[in-house]
Amino acid sequence: MATFSVPDQVPPVAEDCEKLRKAMQGLGTDEKAIISILAHRTARQRCSIRQIYVEKYGEDLFKELEKELSGDFLRAVLVWMPHPAERDAMLAKEATTSPKKSLEDYFVIMEIGCTRTSQELFQARQDYHDRYKRSLEEDVACCTSGDFRKLLVPLVTCYRYEPHDEALVDTALVNSEAKILHDKIFSDKDYSHEEIIRILTTRSKPHLRATLQNYNEQFGHPINKDLKTKPKDEYLALLRATIKCLTCPEKHFEKALRLSMKGLGTKEETLTRVVVTRAEVDMKPIMEQYQRKNNVPLVNDTKGDTSGDYLRMLLALIN
Amino acid sequence: MATFSVPDQVPPVAEDCEKLRKAMQGLGTDEKAIISILAHRTARQRCSIRQIYVEKYGEDLFKELEKELSGDFLRAVLVWMPHPAERDAMLAKEATTSPKKSLEDYFVIMEIGCTRTSQELFQARQDYHDRYKRSLEEDVACCTSGDFRKLLVPLVTCYRYEPHDEALVDTALVNSEAKILHDKIFSDKDYSHEEIIRILTTRSKPHLRATLQNYNEQFGHPINKDLKTKPKDEYLALLRATIKCLTCPEKHFEKALRLSMKGLGTKEETLTRVVVTRAEVDMKPIMEQYQRKNNVPLVNDTKGDTSGDYLRMLLALIN
Repeated sequence: MATFSVPDQVPPVAEDCEKLRKAMQGLGTDEKAIISILAHRTARQRCSIRQIYVEKYGEDLFKELEKELSGDFLRAVLVWMPHPAERDAMLAKEATTSPKKSLEDYFVIMEIGCTRTSQELFQARQDYHDRYKRSLEEDVACCTSGDFRKLLVPLVTCYRYEPHDEALVDTALVNSEAKILHDKIFSDKDYSHEEIIRILTTRSKPHLRATLQNYNEQFGHPINKDLKTKPKDEYLALLRATIKCLTCPEKHFEKALRLSMKGLGTKEETLTRVVVTRAEVDMKPIMEQYQRKNNVPLVNDTKGDTSGDYLRMLLALIN
Repeated sequence: MATFSVPDQVPPVAEDCEKLRKAMQGLGTDEKAIISILAHRTARQRCSIRQIYVEKYGEDLFKELEKELSGDFLRAVLVWMPHPAERDAMLAKEATTSPKKSLEDYFVIMEIGCTRTSQELFQARQDYHDRYKRSLEEDVACCTSGDFRKLLVPLVTCYRYEPHDEALVDTALVNSEAKILHDKIFSDKDYSHEEIIRILTTRSKPHLRATLQNYNEQFGHPINKDLKTKPKDEYLALLRATIKCLTCPEKHFEKALRLSMKGLGTKEETLTRVVVTRAEVDMKPIMEQYQRKNNVPLVNDTKGDTSGDYLRMLLALIN
């Protein structure tokens, strides 16, 4: 479900490195050449390029790119380049150390906790250790408080079971936990109750999908409708996004993309994050959801909101 | 710091298997032969024996042992045999599914969360997935409530940073977190406050050791003294044991061994668990602590409280 193309015959890594070197040498930079290579290599291939580049030229490719590129284009390239676990560690660190904590920072942390596989999340935690000499949960716990902390810390520390067969979901448990969620959310309006947190942060994704479907069937309305009682409440917004990321991530990412380009101005940080982190994973269903929801292809809106090399980089990843 | 011996020249695995086979064939069982092999092989060697045994004879060694041995001796052998991650998953499952949840069950879970390395704890969580088709935290959260859940779930989900150099501990942070702990524990008597949980479940062990030492120096009394205000409170007992396991595990295990043999009767389950889970790790400092605290060697007390093949198995592991 990836949306970027890799040539059938990928050139040798050394050849990629030579072309990149050439694109950055002398006056000016050949951005198109850079995009034509880097936007069309898998994570593993990009890591090899970085490694061979430093062996060949004694320079870190990332630092070279930083010198040559700028603005949103540079940001997109630098977020795209690393191995996903390394990228997640970097995004999480930015979010946990962001001086004015915003809902967007919480979204970054939540997305890492909810939309990666259990193994990928664990790899990001390992990379976080190696890179920052601290644990991810340590920083998430430190930079949050109250309901946000209650939800985010278990989201980034969980190691969910991933059943091979969704049919194995325990229907009695699904039924009883849908009722618990309804009691706490609809009846008590106790949105950070420990039972809500327990269910959302420990159960497998197939179990959660079945539970929320059961919620809808049993009580006649989707859970996220019951979480819209206070439209401006940021914790509720995070909770709704968490539920989406756990059960239908394409809806969350579609909305993030839509809001990043809505009205005047563009939230490039969000646009870049979503495109870059999902291009190798599930960008196709996200784009389909975008088309359904907005009656316009994501590509068209992207062309309307961005330009230049930044646009070219995004298009290379989603086209 | 292991306390069992492995021969300089370990026989080929096939030879071990033949001897075990012979010890269990026909009428009667040669328990001494079984101990002389299994109690003197590392975890890796024991796993190889199990694997080769099933290849050679088409029978699972564990099931064969179950048929031939009994009582506390059987239990000790069966807990000793598996790879530590597998053993931890099994012990945790027993604790989470124990029908009458006791403080001892919480201790088992807490010990796994606190006295394994970060990687070992993660391996136990992986093994738990493979074996039980659920996550460890899912079961721990389900079988606990209130303060016990608040403490135990983050203890089994954490992936603590393990600094190579203890000198890198941030002394300003140590100082301020010692103060937070003192405020919540000594002043507010709010023993399950989220800040206590955050510090104990996310900080590295060297950081925690420095913090508790600072607590003692700054306020003139050890933290565990301030946690003894309600002698019969089980949550406080768990909290004190958690702190010991995180900062000086030999003290926790010495006490567990002492209490398992104190007075009339023996708590064989505890005795077995401590000896078997620590024999390959840190039994030596635990035995030294036992001698210091009780003025008698652990071996002597073990001889006084147990007998037969069970005693012989324990002695093989701690002698």
